[in-house]
Amino acid sequence: MVSKNQIKLITSLQQKKYRQIHQLFIAEGVKVIQELLLSNFILEHLYVTENLFDSISNENKSIISNDELKKMSCLNTANNCLALFKIPLDKKNSSSELIVALDGVSDPGNLGTIIRLCDWFGISQIICSENSVDVYNPKVVQATMGSISRVNVSYLNLEDYISATKLPVFGTFMDGINVYKEKLPKTGILVLGNEANGISKEIENLIKIRLAIPRFGELQKTESLNVASATAIFLSEFKRN
Amino acid sequence: MVSKNQIKLITSLQQKKYRQIHQLFIAEGVKVIQELLLSNFILEHLYVTENLFDSISNENKSIISNDELKKMSCLNTANNCLALFKIPLDKKNSSSELIVALDGVSDPGNLGTIIRLCDWFGISQIICSENSVDVYNPKVVQATMGSISRVNVSYLNLEDYISATKLPVFGTFMDGINVYKEKLPKTGILVLGNEANGISKEIENLIKIRLAIPRFGELQKTESLNVASATAIFLSEFKRN
Repeated sequence: MVSKNQIKLITSLQQKKYRQIHQLFIAEGVKVIQELLLSNFILEHLYVTENLFDSISNENKSIISNDELKKMSCLNTANNCLALFKIPLDKKNSSSELIVALDGVSDPGNLGTIIRLCDWFGISQIICSENSVDVYNPKVVQATMGSISRVNVSYLNLEDYISATKLPVFGTFMDGINVYKEKLPKTGILVLGNEANGISKEIENLIKIRLAIPRFGELQKTESLNVASATAIFLSEFKRN
Repeated sequence: MVSKNQIKLITSLQQKKYRQIHQLFIAEGVKVIQELLLSNFILEHLYVTENLFDSISNENKSIISNDELKKMSCLNTANNCLALFKIPLDKKNSSSELIVALDGVSDPGNLGTIIRLCDWFGISQIICSENSVDVYNPKVVQATMGSISRVNVSYLNLEDYISATKLPVFGTFMDGINVYKEKLPKTGILVLGNEANGISKEIENLIKIRLAIPRFGELQKTESLNVASATAIFLSEFKRN
């Protein structure tokens, strides 16, 4: 049994404004919740429709009906569990050899997939421009499949950050040099841009090395790769040697 | 102005059953519709909320209200146009040097992204097992961003197809050989599996060459890559030399 007010609080967390007020975010599904429980994230409360997560005490866990879960869930097809976790204090940027910088990535599924890719390729730090989608958006949390517990995502003024860095800065463009032919270093910053508009002019002006994935299809037609697909290929190229 | 029955027909096309009865599919957004109009797909009817697509005669085009479009649309945020296209007759498989075979890929966004990747890398043929998501699902059409007009997607018994082929067959697994170290041919079939379960046992038994993308993160933790991310990296490896 869960109160109307509690359901109202939980659904409000689909909006960034209320996540910031309450300092809580939503995670759904056994796999994602399990990964977060094993990490440094602090559980606020867990809602389950059946016997799950035996290790969590009844004080922190409520058994609810499928209908109640459906009302709270952000998913089209609700799962069998939903958890609230505390948003951690801003961590200091971790020292990653390669850093991924996102300039205005706005689709939650794309940010989630990019976090999962960084986790796979051993990249522990993502820097987002302030206009990028919020990492605690429930659709981002979902798409990371738990990788959010192992990759640090910071929001800051990207222009200031890139102006100040001494690391080599790589930008990804349609007209850059062939990434397959370039000797890539172990350390640096790889910048990817917004889904529709790419990297902004302000950031582009700060980028010394322009990389591109060559296109093999009919030249005039294929417009571009999805930003998460492009990230997959660029990270693979940085790491494969 | 559009009739209730017309709206009912259009929303029914979100289901495969009705797409097969009417032999029609939905495309939304200027970019996707434009690409389909430029291709071999035949337009059934176009609905717009403002002056768009001047080249389409009024016989094939209706101006409708935003509310009417919202009722027809499959998107959370409706666009300014929606089109119905005829589903083409099953094309003969085209002769692609590299063929991508999908064994039970079920997420529409993943299939759409994989079609877009194939288009980028000049791969003209995708073979899907019969239990894979339907290519004319509106979310697939949307995610292809128009690439659906340039990549041929066929559904067939994948086990029979792979048993009969003389091409080298590559499977993608967690425990395969390092794809970065393998000399990959220009011609062959690359098999990718279902999001949760990977390649099925029946197909796995037919695969001679098992490939994997090495993992650079903490070994026990990162579970897997999303199938579209994995496809991006494998296609990049087949094409980069």
